[in-house]
Parts: sequence; structure tokens; C-alpha cells
Amino acid sequence: MQMSVGAPLGVFDSGLGGLTVVKALRVSLPQESIAYFGDTARLPYGTKSPATVYQFTRQCLRFLMSLRPKLLVVACNTASALALAELRGEFEVPIVGVLEPGAKAAVEVTREKKGGGGKRGGLIATEATIASNAYPAAIRRLDPQVQVIGRACPLLVPMIEEGREPTDVIVGLVLREYLTPFLELDISTLILGCTHYPLFADAIAQTLGAGGGGVKLIDSAKQTALVVREQLDTMNARSTSSGAPPTRPPLTCYVTDQGQRFERLASRFLGESVGQPVWVTPEMLEL
Amino acid sequence: MQMSVGAPLGVFDSGLGGLTVVKALRVSLPQESIAYFGDTARLPYGTKSPATVYQFTRQCLRFLMSLRPKLLVVACNTASALALAELRGEFEVPIVGVLEPGAKAAVEVTREKKGGGGKRGGLIATEATIASNAYPAAIRRLDPQVQVIGRACPLLVPMIEEGREPTDVIVGLVLREYLTPFLELDISTLILGCTHYPLFADAIAQTLGAGGGGVKLIDSAKQTALVVREQLDTMNARSTSSGAPPTRPPLTCYVTDQGQRFERLASRFLGESVGQPVWVTPEMLEL
Repeated sequence: MQMSVGAPLGVFDSGLGGLTVVKALRVSLPQESIAYFGDTARLPYGTKSPATVYQFTRQCLRFLMSLRPKLLVVACNTASALALAELRGEFEVPIVGVLEPGAKAAVEVTREKKGGGGKRGGLIATEATIASNAYPAAIRRLDPQVQVIGRACPLLVPMIEEGREPTDVIVGLVLREYLTPFLELDISTLILGCTHYPLFADAIAQTLGAGGGGVKLIDSAKQTALVVREQLDTMNARSTSSGAPPTRPPLTCYVTDQGQRFERLASRFLGESVGQPVWVTPEMLEL
Repeated sequence: MQMSVGAPLGVFDSGLGGLTVVKALRVSLPQESIAYFGDTARLPYGTKSPATVYQFTRQCLRFLMSLRPKLLVVACNTASALALAELRGEFEVPIVGVLEPGAKAAVEVTREKKGGGGKRGGLIATEATIASNAYPAAIRRLDPQVQVIGRACPLLVPMIEEGREPTDVIVGLVLREYLTPFLELDISTLILGCTHYPLFADAIAQTLGAGGGGVKLIDSAKQTALVVREQLDTMNARSTSSGAPPTRPPLTCYVTDQGQRFERLASRFLGESVGQPVWVTPEMLEL
């Protein structure tokens, strides 16, 4: 396949969370246009089985491929954990997931830290990501001495999508419940293993700070944007500005569910408003 | 189509919640065999648009029709609210939803109550059910004098599926937040407009009892089972016991997602364990 430097980055997520990765990409790679696909009709993936997540992810990536992207980003931790390894060979462009960049950053930070338990990291994620064991496996490949302790946090995504503020009393109690075990385990890092979680990053840091002292949070979104930039450099495929003042390259969103919900919630994740998304029904996706 | 008295009841839900309706059917109609379909790969429906809920519900009912049921039950409030009216003409067997039985019971109880605001009822449900306005419309058709005040409660389903007990501190706080507005509105009934909610019925009653005094909860599951029984009587289609001791008629579950999650959670809704469900991938459903 002929690769065009002006082609978009294809970014996939089960719904809204991947927009935190888009936000990081817009900072890190401001010249790139982005086609974002959110499978909003079938979200969430975090409670689904590997077989289903694989099938849905494959369909969505095939749709993105029809837009002739130069690179695909799987901006969903659950899809990265459950489906990416199997999908990698299927497409003619490189695929960057969010799991390996997060795992790599966690290993680096854990190594740097001195004293205490030292080589122990925490992970919060969806039920499916935790059950997959993909993060501990990726980290073990990078450094067998780093231990990872994971915990599913099923209420965080619905609380964020409900619009609760990080300062909400109920958010505080839920975070305390989910994070207390980590306080006793002397972790040096905590991976935010779901693209929704950066919206609660400050509240998570505060909860850990109460007794954890200096736990470093790993936000996969930023790490992933850096890996995408490196990958484009390797391919010599960065878009370049053409004339001043530069026009902001487009972000086009495709969603499988109709309705205003995506548009309404998107700005919380992206930090800016998205335009009207394009509706692609699940029936239009190839099997 | 030839209708067989021995044919199963076809019960549809987006996932697990409809099992509370199955539980009520097993009590009310112990001689009936049941085919249950849970669209676990694409749940929840409660945050999705009418177009998507219609399309998914139609596919699932078409699958159930291939099992030659004598009657269909849409045991999902969101699907009943968003899709049932349009779907009714499409199938050759009667379809009973959960919305009208609940609305009817709410109107009856509201009428009986004396004094106070009297003719005012409350409704808790998913975002999509509330947005559809289907409950207020159904109630207005039955009695234009009964007012309904609705509120979406997005955290209740994930808290129930997470396995939280009704006595959990966080459950108590969330219920207080969601229900406090109703305490000030002098309601006489509260419709549990989502089939998950009966699992928290006692905690909901307790929260309302603190200041609400005698608010009657409407559990659509039980009301729906009564309507199904009446409908079968009208059709002269009740299964009859054949010899003693009667064998328990089968409950067969079909789900669109693979994995143990359905089986693991099902007993909380059904009050008994379900067998291994049959896996029907979404791709196998006709468009």
C-alpha cells in the first residue's frame, strides 16, 4: 500500500476515553489530521470477553483502514490488552496500542525509584484488562523484577461519564475504597490503565498522597503520543506545516451510535469541542 | 403461524436485568419453559440512542422467533421505552413489555392513595428511558391527572453488577443523592424503571422511608409476569403439568458475549443458578 504523509492518523476506541489520547496527540503532533472512531453503540468493552473485544476491534480497525491512514492507534486499554497481539499482522500500517507505552513508562519510573518496596507497581483498569493479565505480562517482558498489582475499578468510568467532578464526595469514597490496598503495598507507580482515568488523575494522586507518599501516576495517553511520534519519525511520515498561519488540521469523529451523547461528553476528554460526528451503524461494519 | 401450547416464552433483555422478570415468571407460571436472550456483547442499552436500541432489539427478537415461542417478553425497560411501539407489528406472536405493566400499577396505586400531593409518582430509570419520556406518556394515556417525575440513576446498574450489597456505605450515599429530590416532591409511588433495581428495593425503600413515609415501590417484573399470565389465559395457551412429580421446565439462556460473567452474575438476579448459556455472536444475528 502506498503511504501518504498527508494521510490521517486512525485512532480507535470503544467510545469516548480515547479522546484523552487524541488530546495528547494534538499537543505532540499538532500538524497531523486525525480520524477517530468510537464504537459508542457497543461500548463499554471493559466488561466483555476477549472473543467479543477482538471481533469488535477488528471491525472498527477495518473501517478506519478504509480512510487510508498512515498509522493506527488503538487508544483503548481493553482492546490493546485483549485484541492487539492477534490483530497486528492483519493490517498494512503500523498499529500502536496504549498498553506497551504505559508499561514501558511504568518500568522506567519503577527502576529509578530508590529504597522501600521499590520494584512494585500498581495498576487500575477495567475488569477485562485486569483479567487479561496483559499489563503484568508486558512489564515482565521489559523487566522480570518489577511486580505489578492490579485492581479493577468498575465505577470510575460510569462516574466520569455521569459528569461527576473529582471533588465529589462519592468519587472520593470510591477512590479511597479502590486505592486503599495500594497504600499498604508500597508501590512506586500507579498505571492509569483506562483512558478515562486521567480525568480523575488529581483526585487519585491526592488519595494516594494521604499515605502513599510520592506514587508516580502513569498516564498512557501521553506516553502513547510520544511513541506515535517516534514511529512517524522512523517512517519519515510526519506531516509538515504548509505556510503560515497554519490551519488546524481536522479531527473527524466517527461513531456507531446516533445521538448527542458523544458530542456532549467529548469536550471533557478532549479539552475542546468536537464537531458533529459521522454516524456509522454497526451493521455497516464488515465482518 | 401455528402456535404450540408447549412452546417456550421468549424473554429478551440487553443483559442480566431481565432475569428478575424471569424469576417472577417462574413463580407466576411455573409450568412454562423459557428461552432467555441477553445481548451481553452490546449492553448496556440505557446510554444508547433510540435508533441503536431499535436495531439491536429487533435483531434479538428475530433470533428468539427462530425458537418458535408462543409469546415474547421485552424484559428491558430501555428497549420497551424506545423500541417496542415500532416493533409490535413485526412479529406474529404477542409482545409484552415491562413499561405498560409498571405504568398501570403506578396509576392504580397513585389513585388509591389519599391526601397530600396524591397524584404524583416518581420514576427512576436509565438515561435513555428517562429521555424517551415513554413512562410519563404511558401514564398520561391511563390517567391524565397523574404526574410523573423521572430521574436517571446511571450508577445503580454498575454498582449492582459490581456485586455491591444494598447495605454498602457508597450505595447508601448514591441512593440518598438520587432520591432526595423525590422526598421533597410528596410522591406516592416510585417506579423501579430498570430491571436491575429490584435488587436494591429494600435500600431504596429505606432511603425514601427516612422522610417520604409510605412511598409504594412499583416492581415492573412482578407486574409483567401477571400480564403475561393474563395474556396466555386469553390465548388459552398455558402449559399444563403432565404427571406428578412435575419436572421443572427448562430455562435456556442465549447470550451474545462469551465468558463466565453472565453465569457468575445471573444467580443474583434469578435467585437460582443458570446453566451454561448458549453463545450466539452478534454477527449471527440477522439484520
